[in-house]
Amino acid sequence: MMEKQKEVLEKLAQIFHIKHLLLQQGLAECLGTLILVMFGCGAVAQVVLSGGSHGLFLTVNLAFGFAATLGILVSGQVSGGHLNPAVTFALCFLGREPWKKFATYFIFQTLGAFLGAGIIFGMYFDALQDYGQGALFVDGNNATAGIFATYPSKHLTLLNGFFDQVIGTAALIVCILAIVDPHNNPIPRGLEAFTVGFVVLVIGLSMGFNSGYAVNPARDLGPRLFTAMAGWGGEVFTVKGYWFLVPLFAPFPGAVVGAAVYQLMVGYNVEGEARNKKRREEEESLKCTDITTTQEEVH
Amino acid sequence: MMEKQKEVLEKLAQIFHIKHLLLQQGLAECLGTLILVMFGCGAVAQVVLSGGSHGLFLTVNLAFGFAATLGILVSGQVSGGHLNPAVTFALCFLGREPWKKFATYFIFQTLGAFLGAGIIFGMYFDALQDYGQGALFVDGNNATAGIFATYPSKHLTLLNGFFDQVIGTAALIVCILAIVDPHNNPIPRGLEAFTVGFVVLVIGLSMGFNSGYAVNPARDLGPRLFTAMAGWGGEVFTVKGYWFLVPLFAPFPGAVVGAAVYQLMVGYNVEGEARNKKRREEEESLKCTDITTTQEEVH
Amino acid sequence: MMEKQKEVLEKLAQIFHIKHLLLQQGLAECLGTLILVMFGCGAVAQVVLSGGSHGLFLTVNLAFGFAATLGILVSGQVSGGHLNPAVTFALCFLGREPWKKFATYFIFQTLGAFLGAGIIFGMYFDALQDYGQGALFVDGNNATAGIFATYPSKHLTLLNGFFDQVIGTAALIVCILAIVDPHNNPIPRGLEAFTVGFVVLVIGLSMGFNSGYAVNPARDLGPRLFTAMAGWGGEVFTVKGYWFLVPLFAPFPGAVVGAAVYQLMVGYNVEGEARNKKRREEEESLKCTDITTTQEEVH
Amino acid sequence: MMEKQKEVLEKLAQIFHIKHLLLQQGLAECLGTLILVMFGCGAVAQVVLSGGSHGLFLTVNLAFGFAATLGILVSGQVSGGHLNPAVTFALCFLGREPWKKFATYFIFQTLGAFLGAGIIFGMYFDALQDYGQGALFVDGNNATAGIFATYPSKHLTLLNGFFDQVIGTAALIVCILAIVDPHNNPIPRGLEAFTVGFVVLVIGLSMGFNSGYAVNPARDLGPRLFTAMAGWGGEVFTVKGYWFLVPLFAPFPGAVVGAAVYQLMVGYNVEGEARNKKRREEEESLKCTDITTTQEEVH
Repeated sequence: MMEKQKEVLEKLAQIFHIKHLLLQQGLAECLGTLILVMFGCGAVAQVVLSGGSHGLFLTVNLAFGFAATLGILVSGQVSGGHLNPAVTFALCFLGREPWKKFATYFIFQTLGAFLGAGIIFGMYFDALQDYGQGALFVDGNNATAGIFATYPSKHLTLLNGFFDQVIGTAALIVCILAIVDPHNNPIPRGLEAFTVGFVVLVIGLSMGFNSGYAVNPARDLGPRLFTAMAGWGGEVFTVKGYWFLVPLFAPFPGAVVGAAVYQLMVGYNVEGEARNKKRREEEESLKCTDITTTQEEVH
Repeated sequence: MMEKQKEVLEKLAQIFHIKHLLLQQGLAECLGTLILVMFGCGAVAQVVLSGGSHGLFLTVNLAFGFAATLGILVSGQVSGGHLNPAVTFALCFLGREPWKKFATYFIFQTLGAFLGAGIIFGMYFDALQDYGQGALFVDGNNATAGIFATYPSKHLTLLNGFFDQVIGTAALIVCILAIVDPHNNPIPRGLEAFTVGFVVLVIGLSMGFNSGYAVNPARDLGPRLFTAMAGWGGEVFTVKGYWFLVPLFAPFPGAVVGAAVYQLMVGYNVEGEARNKKRREEEESLKCTDITTTQEEVH
Repeated sequence: MMEKQKEVLEKLAQIFHIKHLLLQQGLAECLGTLILVMFGCGAVAQVVLSGGSHGLFLTVNLAFGFAATLGILVSGQVSGGHLNPAVTFALCFLGREPWKKFATYFIFQTLGAFLGAGIIFGMYFDALQDYGQGALFVDGNNATAGIFATYPSKHLTLLNGFFDQVIGTAALIVCILAIVDPHNNPIPRGLEAFTVGFVVLVIGLSMGFNSGYAVNPARDLGPRLFTAMAGWGGEVFTVKGYWFLVPLFAPFPGAVVGAAVYQLMVGYNVEGEARNKKRREEEESLKCTDITTTQEEVH
Repeated sequence: MMEKQKEVLEKLAQIFHIKHLLLQQGLAECLGTLILVMFGCGAVAQVVLSGGSHGLFLTVNLAFGFAATLGILVSGQVSGGHLNPAVTFALCFLGREPWKKFATYFIFQTLGAFLGAGIIFGMYFDALQDYGQGALFVDGNNATAGIFATYPSKHLTLLNGFFDQVIGTAALIVCILAIVDPHNNPIPRGLEAFTVGFVVLVIGLSMGFNSGYAVNPARDLGPRLFTAMAGWGGEVFTVKGYWFLVPLFAPFPGAVVGAAVYQLMVGYNVEGEARNKKRREEEESLKCTDITTTQEEVH
């Protein structure tokens, strides 16, 4: 029976092996972002729907952080594990990924976030009904739309909100660029995913009060689309002066700021030192060759 | 004296070395699951019995997560450290473990969970007496049965509860398969146990509000059997419409869903790419051999 | 000037290099246990003296866990980083350390714990005065003795308290033996200290409600001695039916139970398999030699 | 287009590569300390401004700890990642860094802390306005100066406050010296940053109640300067008996105490043993040479 099972499994493996590389990568980004949003928004749902008995803001931070780690671990080998269009944008901007990936990744990341929100909606369906007594509110005391997409605190103006997302994304990008920079302080292979998880955790611990630290257009747009379709309605887009535009667009200038800060203050210098070192080694090996050829003496 | 001691110890080592491999593995699974349940349910006991002064839901999540890590570290070398029949089931389903292991592992995992519950019962005997003023309640304000096995929240229907356990287990299996997949993003050897611990932690942070995230038939059944025998009585099985059947059976379809999602979206692709790469290398080495044999020129 | 400084420093290095190995190890254990108690009891002080505004029971658990990690990192190279007479006892019991180390380690560990308590007393001197309005209480609402040594909860009988310490220490020893067992699942070198920290953390999360999880005679006795001398008086020994004897003596039978459980359920089996594997390899290499000598054909 | 982009990027890399090594290092320290303060003080801002709904003292501890990790990861390759003049001082004091680095590092670290405070001020501008109803208070119930620099608790005298900073810094230095000591228990390369993060976390968990554990003159002075200029005024220096002098000066004697304790209790011994081992190996290799030359027999 084992033999039979193995045969079937191998056949399945061949049938379902997708040959198109960019589609492979898109699917991996989709699953990775699904995991990020499922666990992250799941933690928000747990805090909100339990009225605080089963979680607190810290647990949301921990969940988003380690969910990022797990999403990267699942998808990293195939797609690099960006899970965030702002990360893809930064890497394209620095010439480390081709621009053609940007649109595909953005779409699949948003799709994954949409599906992740859907899973949490299904999982906490009864609890959502119970909490809103059958209704789904975008705003007010029984609001549940904030479980899925981000909304600004009362004190926040649109301008400060935009700045908030720029800074948050810039901080994320500075740290990610340092983590993946081959010339900088090397992190043991396989621990990059954990380190990025800590970055997301720390951003949540310190930059979460204004508007819930989306710092990721896909993580915000996907679940917002889902809530619009699942019963909260178009208000999720129009509320608070079309707030949804902020987490959708501000992360991109944020990514540029982050990339510039890291490159100017550290990146170009470690790169330059590595280049100089390589040049010196080449020159020395040339000199050695010179000596050996003139003196006919092997070093 | 040291010499004498070493002699005795070596003799003991030979006497107690069990030759039967599956029994070895069963014992390791038993100890691993004992550790998981002892620390996990111990943390629930600490929160419940202290009335929240010595813990909160987060500490239960942390305890179950790191208890999984420690249980895997203790047993992994011998048995693989499944600690969960749903994990064993998923690995058998994918042809990575023989089906004959399934029943043995299930029994020993359940036994370990039973013993872990018993240790916590003994450790907090006085506190349990104090809390229930001498009585042990399954339901109501002074309920203590929930320290050991899982019970649904008031808002939860059986259908949503079933879906909850399917989704939770599927999420667990997707992440575990990514972690142990030899073709996927390699985690530094020895860190798999930590990573699985983070998976269990994150599931608790985001999927714990409905019914306490058993996602493990042995972790739920063992302690439930113990409570039935230790004084809570048969009500632990009959309460809430025979709820115990949900955490006992739902994890298995959950494992199948998780395995399918991971394989279709990532697993088959990393496997396929690895297969293609190997084939290309073989072809090239063949070509090289061709050249060398025709031209008699060693590359 | 740099030159002068380096000369002085090198001379100091030679003067202060202690040649007696056991004294070196004792000092390392002393500093390691000092770190454990300074950070651990410091966290209790912070929670108690701030009335909960600057910490909670979880922060005490985290502090003791990571303090164990740091104490082991500081002392491990020199002394093995036991920081706990029960750990030293278990290793002597299993023949992995000579019995002569036991007394020396115990004394220096207790001394380190005494000094660590003294540092926290000095650091929080004003806060202690403020909290007790100038007095130091062992019992009652304004008690501060529990910052340093452990005392039982109201619900706890001496018998259950003894069992609590036996179980807690046994759990600690099972996990530590698995972590340091060379035949078992290898943890990446250098991560043992972190893993032990997680063990201490998890014990605190699940076994801390009865009497504060000393599971370490030195960690309890040293600070208790300090409080007796620093103003709390002899009551720290006599209170609650000479409770202090429980955390002082119960960890040793606990260590034996833990060692037996680990060895019988996992340890002897991984050791036996390693022995068998080695024997098979030797036999095969013998057979190979046989073949080569008869057939004069090198494999 | 990709080609064009790469050309531009390479040109930028060459233009912005700073040739002056100490300036490179200063910039790296600046960015590293900026990250430390941005995330650390950001977490304090989140707790204070949200009135505790979006954080607690634990989240501040976690943020400062992991922010230290991230700051070190970003800057470590270039500058060593001190992020703290007391750390630079300890390393100069032990002859491991040249004294000329001290002033440069101090200035750039303070500048980084100043900028980090500025970013948090901008990010939470609306929330600060909302909290103080348009005013910025140094002292009292609506005080917000404590988000940026440290101030003593009510119970604290200047003397005890000085001792608090000496002890806290000494504890930090003992652990850091153990972590970076090449002769001591080696931590896997790349994990030093994480371990230092845990040290900072544990100090916060146990030594944070007196005055907020600055243990770092730059982390305190930079944000204090910023608040003086941004609207809180000169009171940030004069308040509580010129308190600002304590976190500015006490860390230096603390660093000396920490260095002395570590070296005397562990450092000189591991160094001495390593020296002895090397000498023995050299002697043996000499003896071998002797034997070979007399007997003309190659080992």
